[in-house]
Amino acid sequence: MMKILVLHGPNLNLLGTREPGVYGRRTLADINKALTDLAEAQQTELRFLQSNHEGALIDAIHEARGWADGILINPGAFTHYSYALRDAITAVGLPAVEIHLSNVAAREAFRHKSVVTAVCVGQISGFGWRSYTLALQALIDHLVTV
Amino acid sequence: MMKILVLHGPNLNLLGTREPGVYGRRTLADINKALTDLAEAQQTELRFLQSNHEGALIDAIHEARGWADGILINPGAFTHYSYALRDAITAVGLPAVEIHLSNVAAREAFRHKSVVTAVCVGQISGFGWRSYTLALQALIDHLVTV
Amino acid sequence: MMKILVLHGPNLNLLGTREPGVYGRRTLADINKALTDLAEAQQTELRFLQSNHEGALIDAIHEARGWADGILINPGAFTHYSYALRDAITAVGLPAVEIHLSNVAAREAFRHKSVVTAVCVGQISGFGWRSYTLALQALIDHLVTV
Amino acid sequence: MMKILVLHGPNLNLLGTREPGVYGRRTLADINKALTDLAEAQQTELRFLQSNHEGALIDAIHEARGWADGILINPGAFTHYSYALRDAITAVGLPAVEIHLSNVAAREAFRHKSVVTAVCVGQISGFGWRSYTLALQALIDHLVTV
Amino acid sequence: MMKILVLHGPNLNLLGTREPGVYGRRTLADINKALTDLAEAQQTELRFLQSNHEGALIDAIHEARGWADGILINPGAFTHYSYALRDAITAVGLPAVEIHLSNVAAREAFRHKSVVTAVCVGQISGFGWRSYTLALQALIDHLVTV
Amino acid sequence: MMKILVLHGPNLNLLGTREPGVYGRRTLADINKALTDLAEAQQTELRFLQSNHEGALIDAIHEARGWADGILINPGAFTHYSYALRDAITAVGLPAVEIHLSNVAAREAFRHKSVVTAVCVGQISGFGWRSYTLALQALIDHLVTV
Amino acid sequence: MMKILVLHGPNLNLLGTREPGVYGRRTLADINKALTDLAEAQQTELRFLQSNHEGALIDAIHEARGWADGILINPGAFTHYSYALRDAITAVGLPAVEIHLSNVAAREAFRHKSVVTAVCVGQISGFGWRSYTLALQALIDHLVTV
Amino acid sequence: MMKILVLHGPNLNLLGTREPGVYGRRTLADINKALTDLAEAQQTELRFLQSNHEGALIDAIHEARGWADGILINPGAFTHYSYALRDAITAVGLPAVEIHLSNVAAREAFRHKSVVTAVCVGQISGFGWRSYTLALQALIDHLVTV
Amino acid sequence: MMKILVLHGPNLNLLGTREPGVYGRRTLADINKALTDLAEAQQTELRFLQSNHEGALIDAIHEARGWADGILINPGAFTHYSYALRDAITAVGLPAVEIHLSNVAAREAFRHKSVVTAVCVGQISGFGWRSYTLALQALIDHLVTV
Amino acid sequence: MMKILVLHGPNLNLLGTREPGVYGRRTLADINKALTDLAEAQQTELRFLQSNHEGALIDAIHEARGWADGILINPGAFTHYSYALRDAITAVGLPAVEIHLSNVAAREAFRHKSVVTAVCVGQISGFGWRSYTLALQALIDHLVTV
Amino acid sequence: MMKILVLHGPNLNLLGTREPGVYGRRTLADINKALTDLAEAQQTELRFLQSNHEGALIDAIHEARGWADGILINPGAFTHYSYALRDAITAVGLPAVEIHLSNVAAREAFRHKSVVTAVCVGQISGFGWRSYTLALQALIDHLVTV
Amino acid sequence: MMKILVLHGPNLNLLGTREPGVYGRRTLADINKALTDLAEAQQTELRFLQSNHEGALIDAIHEARGWADGILINPGAFTHYSYALRDAITAVGLPAVEIHLSNVAAREAFRHKSVVTAVCVGQISGFGWRSYTLALQALIDHLVTV
Repeated sequence: MMKILVLHGPNLNLLGTREPGVYGRRTLADINKALTDLAEAQQTELRFLQSNHEGALIDAIHEARGWADGILINPGAFTHYSYALRDAITAVGLPAVEIHLSNVAAREAFRHKSVVTAVCVGQISGFGWRSYTLALQALIDHLVTV
Repeated sequence: MMKILVLHGPNLNLLGTREPGVYGRRTLADINKALTDLAEAQQTELRFLQSNHEGALIDAIHEARGWADGILINPGAFTHYSYALRDAITAVGLPAVEIHLSNVAAREAFRHKSVVTAVCVGQISGFGWRSYTLALQALIDHLVTV
Repeated sequence: MMKILVLHGPNLNLLGTREPGVYGRRTLADINKALTDLAEAQQTELRFLQSNHEGALIDAIHEARGWADGILINPGAFTHYSYALRDAITAVGLPAVEIHLSNVAAREAFRHKSVVTAVCVGQISGFGWRSYTLALQALIDHLVTV
Repeated sequence: MMKILVLHGPNLNLLGTREPGVYGRRTLADINKALTDLAEAQQTELRFLQSNHEGALIDAIHEARGWADGILINPGAFTHYSYALRDAITAVGLPAVEIHLSNVAAREAFRHKSVVTAVCVGQISGFGWRSYTLALQALIDHLVTV
Repeated sequence: MMKILVLHGPNLNLLGTREPGVYGRRTLADINKALTDLAEAQQTELRFLQSNHEGALIDAIHEARGWADGILINPGAFTHYSYALRDAITAVGLPAVEIHLSNVAAREAFRHKSVVTAVCVGQISGFGWRSYTLALQALIDHLVTV
Repeated sequence: MMKILVLHGPNLNLLGTREPGVYGRRTLADINKALTDLAEAQQTELRFLQSNHEGALIDAIHEARGWADGILINPGAFTHYSYALRDAITAVGLPAVEIHLSNVAAREAFRHKSVVTAVCVGQISGFGWRSYTLALQALIDHLVTV
Repeated sequence: MMKILVLHGPNLNLLGTREPGVYGRRTLADINKALTDLAEAQQTELRFLQSNHEGALIDAIHEARGWADGILINPGAFTHYSYALRDAITAVGLPAVEIHLSNVAAREAFRHKSVVTAVCVGQISGFGWRSYTLALQALIDHLVTV
Repeated sequence: MMKILVLHGPNLNLLGTREPGVYGRRTLADINKALTDLAEAQQTELRFLQSNHEGALIDAIHEARGWADGILINPGAFTHYSYALRDAITAVGLPAVEIHLSNVAAREAFRHKSVVTAVCVGQISGFGWRSYTLALQALIDHLVTV
Repeated sequence: MMKILVLHGPNLNLLGTREPGVYGRRTLADINKALTDLAEAQQTELRFLQSNHEGALIDAIHEARGWADGILINPGAFTHYSYALRDAITAVGLPAVEIHLSNVAAREAFRHKSVVTAVCVGQISGFGWRSYTLALQALIDHLVTV
Repeated sequence: MMKILVLHGPNLNLLGTREPGVYGRRTLADINKALTDLAEAQQTELRFLQSNHEGALIDAIHEARGWADGILINPGAFTHYSYALRDAITAVGLPAVEIHLSNVAAREAFRHKSVVTAVCVGQISGFGWRSYTLALQALIDHLVTV
Repeated sequence: MMKILVLHGPNLNLLGTREPGVYGRRTLADINKALTDLAEAQQTELRFLQSNHEGALIDAIHEARGWADGILINPGAFTHYSYALRDAITAVGLPAVEIHLSNVAAREAFRHKSVVTAVCVGQISGFGWRSYTLALQALIDHLVTV
Repeated sequence: MMKILVLHGPNLNLLGTREPGVYGRRTLADINKALTDLAEAQQTELRFLQSNHEGALIDAIHEARGWADGILINPGAFTHYSYALRDAITAVGLPAVEIHLSNVAAREAFRHKSVVTAVCVGQISGFGWRSYTLALQALIDHLVTV
């Protein structure tokens, strides 16, 4: 059975209420539920963490070395400056997939730069909550193949 | 029945033989076959075009206004400078999804900039040939919802 | 009798339907008609070409050496990167006038840079379809004077 | 009857004597005469101001709110840095057309940037004194249509 | 017997008539003749293509995989932006030599950057038509050695 | 009765002892006391948080959605890079005022850029501890009016 | 009795009518009245000048050396380029406070840079006409303390 | 007896297992042991903290004001963006030495910039675990001298 | 008899009192006196203008065409942005010498750029009031020779 | 009989032993021998200098005015910053050809910029020791023709 | 017995008298003495060279191939531009350690960039003359281990 | 009696023959003669050095500490990159004046930046050989005053 850590970065706990025109109306619980449904259908176990603390996300990535096969991560605004998060992904050596709900390339200039993508397997952005389910499928397929 | 135009940009006709370490060993025919299988299972019709000519890709996008519901596009190296391709996508008003086989953010600096993403629905990159099937699924879901 | 080549760059074939808020509701045929009317009144012959192919525009500029006295060109998105188009204008040595329907300086940053203007006689932008008729008048007057 | 303010920026009082290779041999009086002739033929009244004082040009733009339908402006070197002039145009809300005698894009790098264009209807540059008559025609047509 | 593809990029068909002060008075036919003479003396077969179409040059590079041992290419203005051309050279894996008639480093700033050099064996620029014969000799020697 | 969250970012707990030449001699307790006095005189309730943890500040902003009418924030050094803090302010939709004790524009270059100001109502900087009382007055007036 | 010079830069004479969505509906007379009321309550005398002429503002700053204790200044668009204004403030050595009605950090990029702030005591921006009254209070308090 | 705080930044807890080609095979415990041995030989007491939380590192620096004579710090990835950490070092006024295991100048471009060095006594980088012992010696000598 | 216009830009009327550590203790009258003494000894007539108004300086340059042989100019802060002043010097075609009291290269970064130097004969900076007398000697010698 | 100065810049004395993967296994003596053979066959005399001293290379260029018809120069790392070398080439007015053994465009970013090319006839790079023989041929042909 | 070359770059011969506030009061002889003492205690032989000539430093590095095991180098101002020095270090393949007396990151911007660090083992800066002894220890330890 | 070192940088030995259109027809001997005449008239002794070797110029500056009161220096192309020369001037603490024959601001972009000016008393440029005599006068006056 495959095991995957799902990380939600800062401010994603407000999903559904935060700028719904940009991020959609689904809550984080809705997204986690959709991911769980998809995961169960593929014999995959998920563990979730949302945190507004960069350090807590790094801690969770470190712990994942002990149990997980891969990581789904929506780094939120940490995408644009958290080299510590980037180093954490490199350090544990687990395949990771970067997720964005919105099409970051169509928003403010500071959102066009990700310091994380280069150490991930790939990136999926712009499909709202479906960015998550696509990413889960992508990671499961990647883990099966590699 | 949904109809989707699948566009492959310059040099993608060499897939499978071109730098397999970067782009994988599947040929373009293999990818088109995988897409067709997925599309048929979802009552979706695909039409394919690969071209090394920017103008031919633009012409195809224009024609798609007459028959297609959406566009899958791997712009290849045009990603980085073809504002004409970008304008074509905007001009026809069809939802488009940008695809990259490799994780462009982990390669040469010039590949980090896409002039096309901002006018697409979203982007999927880094999953090899599966970037295409993920993108097809993403576009079908998007079209069903909107 | 003066002879002028009128070149329309990529995506301009969609005029009238493409983002009318930006580009206006007149079609390319309408514009060509307005130009023809104005040209006839001044004993000037026009030949038109619209193409989404950079190479086709360059070929036409080259051929113009054999018959034309000047060139009107709306390079569309090629404005921003086609140094080949720029070189073609320099190479044939015919006076050219650059045209833009919209006020490019008021749009996205990438539209603020033109690689073509420096090798033209002048530029007219922002007046919708009238940018064309003004440019035709400007070129005729220029040709008469020089 | 339409009324238009014609503004000539710094150093344009020297036209005809100042670098004739760049700016032509016509004096400002010649240009104003040509504009007046054209205006009269179209039931349009013009008022002229040339000043080397940024503040005087801004004052004139402000006063134009009381009587003018539009503005023709050759900002001279203010083109490149006078955000105050730009704000004045925005503040009065009158349609303005930016004029340059020379093809600024073919000259020194500092002349390639205009801080004014984005708040004008459009720009005409490179046609010598005819830039003015073309711009007058453009503005009259614009005012008739809007 | 060695076989080499000789590619001439946009506007090079005008050689001899186009800005002779910059590019010299020899026509493309003259250059091809000089190359053929040199090639024959060294048991080398050449095939030539000049095109103003980026796509046509890429197509020719692709086809060269079937028959050629190396490529001589003067990319003309595509030098400065055609990442698609660059990718084509990388994709076919044939040794290529970049040629410029003029000393591009002594001309406009935009000509100082080549997106192609890094994927070629080397570059020769500034010697007029002799840049071609030097490059042919360089490529033959390279092929013999490798 | 109005309620306002007052946030003090990293290192502000050392106020009064930390570089008094730059930040003044008042402690954070002194400032909070001055704010409380002013607030009470205007029927406003304040809650304070100082933290060196970016995540703790974000958590507090999120919780403020449940009780506060607005936010006073001196982001300290987070001003210059915490896009997560910026997103938190946008996400909760409460009016915020940015405060700086020192005149950041007169200090090191990295302090000239704030990633937070654009999502606040306004900014007050340079008046030492009075920046806080001015900001409180500004926010109360803003809340009364809107 | 304290004496303060209040300077309003270019285009501020149009307040109330100029882009009210950005600058509010109060006229400059309204603002001056509000300032006068506040000043009188604190035994402070104000003198006002609005000018669209950079030189007139500089002259007024120079003259203030003879009578004023401090300066309130909304430099309008001069904020972004008038190093002469900056030097004038430094030269007279009077404490100055920079004021902006709108939140300049949330507007066009050119408005993000102030050449004046570094030589002022502090800056207040984004609170509409209240930016002025806050600034007056800030300056009075600063003068009393120093 | 001298007392020194030794701070290890994010991801350094994984030392020995994390990219040993870059960071070496010694664990953090090994390094702390080596430091302790060296410190004891020089009558110096060390206290250690590793944290992935920027705020925890700042808190520790603040507390060090009460007991420590100096600080050894390997800021890990915070090196490149944590201005809050920089301000903490400045605020407590203790001499600090910056340490890097690897030669950061020989790695990715983003690692070439340190926001912390300028407020430290000096920097030692590239000597693996010995960077720490060298830094300890450097700090002790510095403290003895000053 | 030679005739020279001496122009003093903004804030130079305050010389002697304005930041004497930077600009020295001599007043503008002192400098003009020293210049007059030197000029009389060489049969040269000087006329002086100090203005804080860019337009007034331009007007004076224009008028100088009628009577002067050359121009001495200390543009003050206009040095860094007044392209209108630059154009005025070019337009009148009189030889000009740029003067700075202080060594601008050793001061703030914005003072390192002069938009005026390139159209002057030369520049003298850093020698306090003697920059003026040196410049006068330089201009007289230049006029005698040319 | 033609005479040519051959200059080898810094570190080229180590050729054959220095990074043979980059620079090849031939020694400088080997290259000089190959050049001499080629030169003799064409009635050309060569003189050689290798130096790690910028000044020695400049001195040699100066002396070449007395005897040489042209210069072959591999400036080594001076390529990237020695404007003094550049000025020397311009000053003596002899035609020079710039040589690089490796394809500098495919190496570190700092090697992409040459301060010398613009004052040479042309440049040859990437062909190992054959870059030299090609360059000699190019220079001889150039000298014969001019 | 280990042998190490110690290189002192330009202006270091003035140590002790040159800006003692920045570089300390020890002379170069003092530093060399301290190094010799430390070296002797570890059976290491040192040879010293100070030169203001870039070429002399490069020559010494080349010669070190014949006798030395490693290099200590304080490149002085060559740090910031001497790519020739950098290439010399790479060419001889000896481990080198870069030394700076002062904390270069805390000084002028041009001192923040080193073109040498990336080809050294590591860097030590900011500890005055002790930077040298620390570096010697670091190099000896490095040589013993490798 | 005052004593001054006069330094001429690289390529200045060719004066009179090198690009006379830019640098004039006087030789270095002519200039030194003119300087000597002027110096003698003012009881000043000059010593001259021209060198193409950066190190030789630095050595001479160092030696000047023993005998000279000041330095005149035309650094030639070293102006643009020799931080070692800059440090030498700072290190000896003698007042220096920077000289340029041509108006460097009117030439190539790389000549617009001087790394030396900020550590000199002042700069004189653009007056041909008279730049030297003006600079000598400026330095003598400076030395007399200080």
